[in-house]
Amino acid sequence: MYTDRFGTLVQKLRLLPSVGSKSAQRMALHLLMRQRTGALELAQALQEAIEHIHECSICHSLTEHEICDICQDTERDDGLLCVVESPADVFAIEQSGSFKGKYHVLHGHLSPLDGIGPEEVGIPYLVQRLSQGQIREVILATNATVEGQATAHYLVESCKHLPIKITRIAQGVPQGGELEYVDSHTLHQALTHRLPLNQSS
Amino acid sequence: MYTDRFGTLVQKLRLLPSVGSKSAQRMALHLLMRQRTGALELAQALQEAIEHIHECSICHSLTEHEICDICQDTERDDGLLCVVESPADVFAIEQSGSFKGKYHVLHGHLSPLDGIGPEEVGIPYLVQRLSQGQIREVILATNATVEGQATAHYLVESCKHLPIKITRIAQGVPQGGELEYVDSHTLHQALTHRLPLNQSS
Ligand SMILES: [Zn+2]
Ligand SMILES: [Zn+2]
Repeated sequence: MYTDRFGTLVQKLRLLPSVGSKSAQRMALHLLMRQRTGALELAQALQEAIEHIHECSICHSLTEHEICDICQDTERDDGLLCVVESPADVFAIEQSGSFKGKYHVLHGHLSPLDGIGPEEVGIPYLVQRLSQGQIREVILATNATVEGQATAHYLVESCKHLPIKITRIAQGVPQGGELEYVDSHTLHQALTHRLPLNQSS
Repeated sequence: MYTDRFGTLVQKLRLLPSVGSKSAQRMALHLLMRQRTGALELAQALQEAIEHIHECSICHSLTEHEICDICQDTERDDGLLCVVESPADVFAIEQSGSFKGKYHVLHGHLSPLDGIGPEEVGIPYLVQRLSQGQIREVILATNATVEGQATAHYLVESCKHLPIKITRIAQGVPQGGELEYVDSHTLHQALTHRLPLNQSS
């Protein structure tokens, strides 16, 4: 009943998160009936984004350059490193305006049952970065989920040998909540009232 | 904080129906982090769809050809015409499997306050199609909304001079409901129990 290309478009729109077949069909029709120019602009934007946006070679957030704007910013505190699970969390914390250090973006969180261990998450690279001596405090801002907590605990163990203060954002982040959906005020509270987790703090 | 191209992608994703800025950001990150190949396939599918899919020159539904498969289908009843507001409604009725006639797709419904009158909706072209004498019954399957009802009533008036039976899908379509979201069984009921609206019925 669909034309071939319509079916393909619906199928590809389903690659978007939380888009089922009804939504995808609705999106395809909307674009074809009312947003034909916009659809071409979206196609162009997708191609440009995939071609030019990649991971920052230092913090692993997303950038169009070799090194992202935040890593390059000499006015930010190089001694303070905020560890998050995803670039979305960097965006959320930046929007809260409560942090002026640098970031380190993990590839998600530990999930042993899915075969996602320290190597896949990028923990060895983070420990190596911390070993270089420039960083005096690490703020663990992984999600307040079971996996995010486990990842934070694992990081505390991995950094035991380093003379670095380790803190965990705490106050205000609701249990089970995912960082990118927390409002700016709550994030501000969480960063301001961060709690020490190890002894050199 | 966004890179330029990330911001552009988020903005273009917002052209999709029911996608706000948070959803668009989530979609952009999902594509960049986990669906880079899929994103390029989506871009390609969008371009191909816009290039090749257009209105059928007879029924105004969507097709990749000059005339759509349904209009070309000689096994369907040429004397029975189902009038709908959008190609999505054609899809919904086809999925219900309860109709073997032909279709006519209006450009939405009458909406005088938005400057959308009979000409914009394509009613003169429909009346012209009906005047050719091949059609013996018109099933008005515009939405069961206030605008869809008004459009159906306007069509009854516009066809008064023609020796054509006019019916309206009725039973089962919930008041205020939009046709493309109605389940197949309800659509089947609505088509089976259609009610005559004018005197030549
Ligand atoms: Zn960076
Ligand atoms: Zn057609």
